Amino acid sequence: MSLVPLCDDLPQFLRNYLPNAANKERISLPFVTLTYAQSLDARISKGPGIRTTISHPETKTMTHYLRYHHDGILIGSGTVLIDNPGLNCKWGSHSVASSPRPIILDTKQKWKFNGSKMQELFDKGQGKPPIVVVTSGPVMKEEHVDYAICPVDEATQQVDWRMLFEILKEDFNIRSIMVEGGANLINQLLLRGDIINSLIVTIGSTFLGKSGTEVSPTQSVNLKDMTWWKGTTDVILCARLAVE
Amino acid sequence: MSLVPLCDDLPQFLRNYLPNAANKERISLPFVTLTYAQSLDARISKGPGIRTTISHPETKTMTHYLRYHHDGILIGSGTVLIDNPGLNCKWGSHSVASSPRPIILDTKQKWKFNGSKMQELFDKGQGKPPIVVVTSGPVMKEEHVDYAICPVDEATQQVDWRMLFEILKEDFNIRSIMVEGGANLINQLLLRGDIINSLIVTIGSTFLGKSGTEVSPTQSVNLKDMTWWKGTTDVILCARLAVE
Repeated sequence: MSLVPLCDDLPQFLRNYLPNAANKERISLPFVTLTYAQSLDARISKGPGIRTTISHPETKTMTHYLRYHHDGILIGSGTVLIDNPGLNCKWGSHSVASSPRPIILDTKQKWKFNGSKMQELFDKGQGKPPIVVVTSGPVMKEEHVDYAICPVDEATQQVDWRMLFEILKEDFNIRSIMVEGGANLINQLLLRGDIINSLIVTIGSTFLGKSGTEVSPTQSVNLKDMTWWKGTTDVILCARLAVE
Repeated sequence: MSLVPLCDDLPQFLRNYLPNAANKERISLPFVTLTYAQSLDARISKGPGIRTTISHPETKTMTHYLRYHHDGILIGSGTVLIDNPGLNCKWGSHSVASSPRPIILDTKQKWKFNGSKMQELFDKGQGKPPIVVVTSGPVMKEEHVDYAICPVDEATQQVDWRMLFEILKEDFNIRSIMVEGGANLINQLLLRGDIINSLIVTIGSTFLGKSGTEVSPTQSVNLKDMTWWKGTTDVILCARLAVE
């Protein structure tokens, strides 16, 4: 699948929300962008495992433009197991150098690189090998895969997000990360204004319906620095989380 | 509370989605606009009875501009009992003539005009008296109130929407209606491309959180003729329901 061209005005629109030099103060943390595409009714898919078209090809191109600008792309193993995504970058030179490193949050160690789309792309020289995030030493180490060990917070049963991002920067030199999903990760990280630098949300003009997979955090979240882009059928919001 | 001025480009943006002469073919039905304001996570309030600011004052003005262009404004009694809204029109001359008639869907006959904000506005000459929709002859008739009797569909336990809109046009000469809420009505009518002429949704750039009152229909809904407007902090979508 090839991409349609990037809309002329998108680079300017996104400019202030991409990883940049202004991040120097956060020495211990990478620049973290939270990004996803949703329907009007805040669903990111019709349901687990259902391939769902939400956004226009022009906003799909933006996703690859964002990947071009990040060192890593974080995604939960639930989504990876269901969708088997490639997670490489098809924008620009389409070389392995411009692809982010896939980072798979796989606390239960259910995912295998072997046999995945990511391995296929890696073998073809079109994608980088992944970093798999586990909570304790991996049960079975796979070739080409790096492992990041990060504890789960006992109180919340969530991965210790701050520690994870610190490990990714310190041990793997990942200076910028985009988080693409799934809903569980997004809902948790929408509450982490202390970690997330940018929020980039595409809204497609469709309703996926109540049984779809929903993005809605457990509490209300205010934003700041909001700016919108209008596409053919979608809009894109760039914003920052207002830290409480 | 007075309104901020209407944004200069909104009348042109809304023009093709307002009641107009093109509706002549639908002799038995009024022109029906479905309109509401939601958060990014598709919540129209933080929860029942919680007054929630979602949209910018400039998009609130649009709501009154829409009211100016409709003969009636339909709302469920659940919302009316909780919010006690005035439902008049504050845009334009701000006269009673430019206000729509409130139409309250009150199948369980729980709402009283007497003592309501609507009565207060009517007494001051700033609003019209309501039409109350009931399923059988009203238990207690109130002064100034008209009653529309419309059955509930046994199969769906929903009011017979088509019959209701036909009654409102035939018996009360209501040639255009905007439906403002609550979520229950919106979710039902999003599935009625055979009745709804226009969809106008404001999206505010905030998350109200999981416990908020949600708009998401029971099944997926496709749209057509989509067009977006960008405001200071909100976007507005105008569209039509793609009839299956």
